[in-house]
Amino acid sequence: MVIVLSPGADQDAIDEIVQVVEDAGGEAFISKGVSRTIIGVVGNAGVLEALEAKDLTQHSGVHEVFRITTPYKLVSKENHSHTSTVMVGDVPIGPSTVTLIAGPCAVETPEQTLEGARLAVTAGGTILRGGAFKPRTSPYAFQGLGVEGLRILQEVGREVGMPVVTEVVDAADVDVVAQHADMLQIGTRNMQNFALLQAAGSVGKPVLLKRGLTSTYDEWFMAAEYIAQRGNLNIVLCERGIRTFEPSVRNTLDVTAVPVVHDMTHLPVIVDPSHAAGRRDLVVPLARAGLAAGADGLIVDVHARPEEALCDGPQALFGDSLTELSKVMATFPALLGRSQNQR
Amino acid sequence: MVIVLSPGADQDAIDEIVQVVEDAGGEAFISKGVSRTIIGVVGNAGVLEALEAKDLTQHSGVHEVFRITTPYKLVSKENHSHTSTVMVGDVPIGPSTVTLIAGPCAVETPEQTLEGARLAVTAGGTILRGGAFKPRTSPYAFQGLGVEGLRILQEVGREVGMPVVTEVVDAADVDVVAQHADMLQIGTRNMQNFALLQAAGSVGKPVLLKRGLTSTYDEWFMAAEYIAQRGNLNIVLCERGIRTFEPSVRNTLDVTAVPVVHDMTHLPVIVDPSHAAGRRDLVVPLARAGLAAGADGLIVDVHARPEEALCDGPQALFGDSLTELSKVMATFPALLGRSQNQR
Amino acid sequence: MVIVLSPGADQDAIDEIVQVVEDAGGEAFISKGVSRTIIGVVGNAGVLEALEAKDLTQHSGVHEVFRITTPYKLVSKENHSHTSTVMVGDVPIGPSTVTLIAGPCAVETPEQTLEGARLAVTAGGTILRGGAFKPRTSPYAFQGLGVEGLRILQEVGREVGMPVVTEVVDAADVDVVAQHADMLQIGTRNMQNFALLQAAGSVGKPVLLKRGLTSTYDEWFMAAEYIAQRGNLNIVLCERGIRTFEPSVRNTLDVTAVPVVHDMTHLPVIVDPSHAAGRRDLVVPLARAGLAAGADGLIVDVHARPEEALCDGPQALFGDSLTELSKVMATFPALLGRSQNQR
Amino acid sequence: MVIVLSPGADQDAIDEIVQVVEDAGGEAFISKGVSRTIIGVVGNAGVLEALEAKDLTQHSGVHEVFRITTPYKLVSKENHSHTSTVMVGDVPIGPSTVTLIAGPCAVETPEQTLEGARLAVTAGGTILRGGAFKPRTSPYAFQGLGVEGLRILQEVGREVGMPVVTEVVDAADVDVVAQHADMLQIGTRNMQNFALLQAAGSVGKPVLLKRGLTSTYDEWFMAAEYIAQRGNLNIVLCERGIRTFEPSVRNTLDVTAVPVVHDMTHLPVIVDPSHAAGRRDLVVPLARAGLAAGADGLIVDVHARPEEALCDGPQALFGDSLTELSKVMATFPALLGRSQNQR
Repeated sequence: MVIVLSPGADQDAIDEIVQVVEDAGGEAFISKGVSRTIIGVVGNAGVLEALEAKDLTQHSGVHEVFRITTPYKLVSKENHSHTSTVMVGDVPIGPSTVTLIAGPCAVETPEQTLEGARLAVTAGGTILRGGAFKPRTSPYAFQGLGVEGLRILQEVGREVGMPVVTEVVDAADVDVVAQHADMLQIGTRNMQNFALLQAAGSVGKPVLLKRGLTSTYDEWFMAAEYIAQRGNLNIVLCERGIRTFEPSVRNTLDVTAVPVVHDMTHLPVIVDPSHAAGRRDLVVPLARAGLAAGADGLIVDVHARPEEALCDGPQALFGDSLTELSKVMATFPALLGRSQNQR
Repeated sequence: MVIVLSPGADQDAIDEIVQVVEDAGGEAFISKGVSRTIIGVVGNAGVLEALEAKDLTQHSGVHEVFRITTPYKLVSKENHSHTSTVMVGDVPIGPSTVTLIAGPCAVETPEQTLEGARLAVTAGGTILRGGAFKPRTSPYAFQGLGVEGLRILQEVGREVGMPVVTEVVDAADVDVVAQHADMLQIGTRNMQNFALLQAAGSVGKPVLLKRGLTSTYDEWFMAAEYIAQRGNLNIVLCERGIRTFEPSVRNTLDVTAVPVVHDMTHLPVIVDPSHAAGRRDLVVPLARAGLAAGADGLIVDVHARPEEALCDGPQALFGDSLTELSKVMATFPALLGRSQNQR
Repeated sequence: MVIVLSPGADQDAIDEIVQVVEDAGGEAFISKGVSRTIIGVVGNAGVLEALEAKDLTQHSGVHEVFRITTPYKLVSKENHSHTSTVMVGDVPIGPSTVTLIAGPCAVETPEQTLEGARLAVTAGGTILRGGAFKPRTSPYAFQGLGVEGLRILQEVGREVGMPVVTEVVDAADVDVVAQHADMLQIGTRNMQNFALLQAAGSVGKPVLLKRGLTSTYDEWFMAAEYIAQRGNLNIVLCERGIRTFEPSVRNTLDVTAVPVVHDMTHLPVIVDPSHAAGRRDLVVPLARAGLAAGADGLIVDVHARPEEALCDGPQALFGDSLTELSKVMATFPALLGRSQNQR
Repeated sequence: MVIVLSPGADQDAIDEIVQVVEDAGGEAFISKGVSRTIIGVVGNAGVLEALEAKDLTQHSGVHEVFRITTPYKLVSKENHSHTSTVMVGDVPIGPSTVTLIAGPCAVETPEQTLEGARLAVTAGGTILRGGAFKPRTSPYAFQGLGVEGLRILQEVGREVGMPVVTEVVDAADVDVVAQHADMLQIGTRNMQNFALLQAAGSVGKPVLLKRGLTSTYDEWFMAAEYIAQRGNLNIVLCERGIRTFEPSVRNTLDVTAVPVVHDMTHLPVIVDPSHAAGRRDLVVPLARAGLAAGADGLIVDVHARPEEALCDGPQALFGDSLTELSKVMATFPALLGRSQNQR
């Protein structure tokens, strides 16, 4: 921690701050300059947290306080230098593979879900996705089938032999979702629903944590820390597009997030080009860009008849666009020193 | 609804769309231009919603679809031309008054809460705020006293004779919060926690709905619609600063939101200058700006000893800054054709 | 300046940095902590600039470098503790008054400009605005009358007895604009057109510097510094709305900028609610909010027949909205401890 | 063009609008619905532009006006269905190749520039970049060598046999820059410096047009239209990162821009990962992502001794990072159905 004093801070102000630092168990190193004095603070993690909790800018003479250590611990790369591999059922997501999660945006019927699963397989998918609880901006939009949707997804997963991932939107639903799914997804709108994060961290299943639409990297990693704190380090991060000023596309896929995640945390990271783009014609270019940036996998929407989809039809892959994705899955992993997951 | 066809769309494409519109019970009006054809669709609300749920851009020849009606109904100004007045206990929030909600960011102890309530009163406050469940970015930060905090807040409210508002962060806590508080607050991070919105809408207490950090106006009004759908129209909106590119202040208070809310909905709107600014010296200028823009009230943090506050001390008003706020409350309402709430 | 070393930096790395600091004429103070070492650097402005120009993060062992002093000097409040008053002709813009600049967005004809000037006067305006060189997003939109427009504006200004301000968009035009205008405006799109800033700073007329649509406060103050460096401190800053994610209004007026400008610089700051909102019905509420936040003045568009305006008609005030503005000008200054400029 | 009337608009209001449309030479098609009337307007380009210039929302009864045709013509894909190839000297930038532009951020000395050119060649570069006029946020930062820098760059280009591209920042400098360079670069801060765009469009050399830091796609294409209007269609667009809320990286590379450019215009588009990231370790992942998204080339900074660079040293490639880039240039083009430019 570094405390920068105001230009006019006198010796009394300096002494007062030094006292606060020492009372908290830290050591203060003073650098007196021509126009300013800087106080470097050292101490163990507990000392620094205690000092950060206090608002030192309240003291007269303090201009600014910089925190230097990262605020997250369990997910930080500092103590785990290699990217972790998270197992979803028997499918790995990690640094040596490229994993494709695919399926319908929403589970609508057993038939539509099975069709979606088969499309997923043809594209190279090894994990099945499908929404049973759908968070929708409008209360008048289709909200998902709920528990009935979970059952359909689980049965279809068994039939095609794929583990399944599905979203949970309320802490109260975590148990029932965990009974039916191999991985829990926390969506972009709930990234800072801390009760949900803690419940998901306690239930023993891997978690797919989507980045909030306007969350900074640090906020995202802190959300993962909430899960990790409950003893669950099986967390996969998912970049799904951020909100920017551009009105003509739904969101802006932030591929820079991929190398930043690998630099700052030991968690794997995948990319969701479907929800970022919101338009089928952009999905495959963005999928390629995400893998090229170093993502450990992809999650995409597929649908056999998108014009009838109850949710996000315009972004669902099928036909030619799906064939194009399967070519990407067949060629990109090797180019990036990885292997494609096989079924 | 307006459907714009692609430049090359032929008669078959036109006929296909007309068929879809008519099958849904709507009427299609065709405008053939030099380079494009436009189809105007008319019909009742049910017809239009059915057509919007379908993804018409899936049809060959369709370039773009514009929705024309607003997606929210119950909170819209279309059917309620005057701003509503919401009663919190016996305190009105609405178009003829300026209401000040004030109190400590977090309930820490009975003494600190009572001190905060007394500061609130001296500034002209008529509703007491205080957090018992605190959503914090870091799992290592103070998370609030929970139910014990609710009890303290309720007792202090009774002692000073003020109704109380406090945040609820999980649908499972709505009942217990409603037992202790006169108004439920839904915070910025939970604005699209739909399970929470629905639970809050069902419990019979007025709701203070903060705008999401990066929610558009439409998303905010749709979140209010979730509450309204459960039969509760006692909703007060709260603008609390949005996330922008500017790094030197915490958030950017969007005062434009105030006249926009009054133009589009019948709900009252208040402004939270404390959380927007994050810095005490900016709170009063922003409070003045919010009222001048037409806000129906303010919500601010106060603390008798901010340097000891467990949460957001740097933004809490006290001493001179509080005196300045009380002057604003004494002079601005009359200038804006309103009266200040009296205790 | 503070240099934070990486967790694993050894004594050699520390010695290397100390050497670089001392070679530049600075002093290095070392704080060795449990997990990190921090080096505080002190020295005069020249030393710090020299060190900032070097990229110290290139050195092995350096994790991060914080700059502590503000990068602007001439416009900073550090050496001028009171807000300056800038004279435009005989009209002051500064801390004891509220100045209204008003007029048509674009100069179209002598008649329309004179009508606009008279509307400006009725609203309490004391400086006349009008565009002769118009920067337009589309090359197919009206680009302004150029030098002919300057002549019209100057003549109308003389007729009504108001100094005039107009935009200059190219360094090559600075001289001719300065011959006809009492104040030069630099628009939002040119805030970082450094050749234009320098030319405007050299010509001896006061400058109205609009904030870039997405410029940070620091970038804005640095742009002012470019003008000041040429010997011209007669600079008035103008907040005119920033670009955010909200699609339903043109820009978001950032009223927080007003107290921040007054805190960080000695320059006066005014607010442009017309270009921020882009909609007439929002202009007066935003004008009030800007003044309430502490602005030293306003700049607004007026037009006698907005439906015929060649530029930005939808935001031009006239009729009732203008009357409303004149009431604001008559009542707000006193409330804020200022006087309204009188003609 | 579609004109949406307010719910209460009566027949007089409809007749008034129809009259305005017909006076402008257009045809009006009326769709009367239960709650609203929609007027579809058709006519040739001139008619529509004339109507767009008028502000139809001024008329009573008009709620909203939608423009349907794209506002840019010459750069639009509507009339040129294939991506153009732009020749820079004898080097093509277009759909069948991947072109690498590389060199030092700023021309500092003949030796440093030659070293930079040689590094560029080893990485697969076929066009040399180097800044002589540098737009810098601070007036105290290195501003470039000006004309002397142009001479150095031209000579080094001849020596290594590469055409050169360099930035021009003022309309007055366009001629001298065009005498020394094979391609003119317009930087992000000048994307809406319309005088500069027009001058660059008139001088007969290809133009590299960087996207403004917060420009929408439409604004970017309109800026290109300014150049094209002067008869110059040899324009290459360059995505270089946009400003978002994320504080920990300099900018956010928007790879979605690449397929959008190809969808909406016939211009080639390249990506600048160096200025987007501002950090060397992110440059190669972002370069890969840009190519994978479909970019027609890259522009990157290189420097033999980045710790001594006068500008943007931290992002310059050298050593291992440059080797990594050369591998990308050797493997990615084939994967994407293109060939790498050869010298």
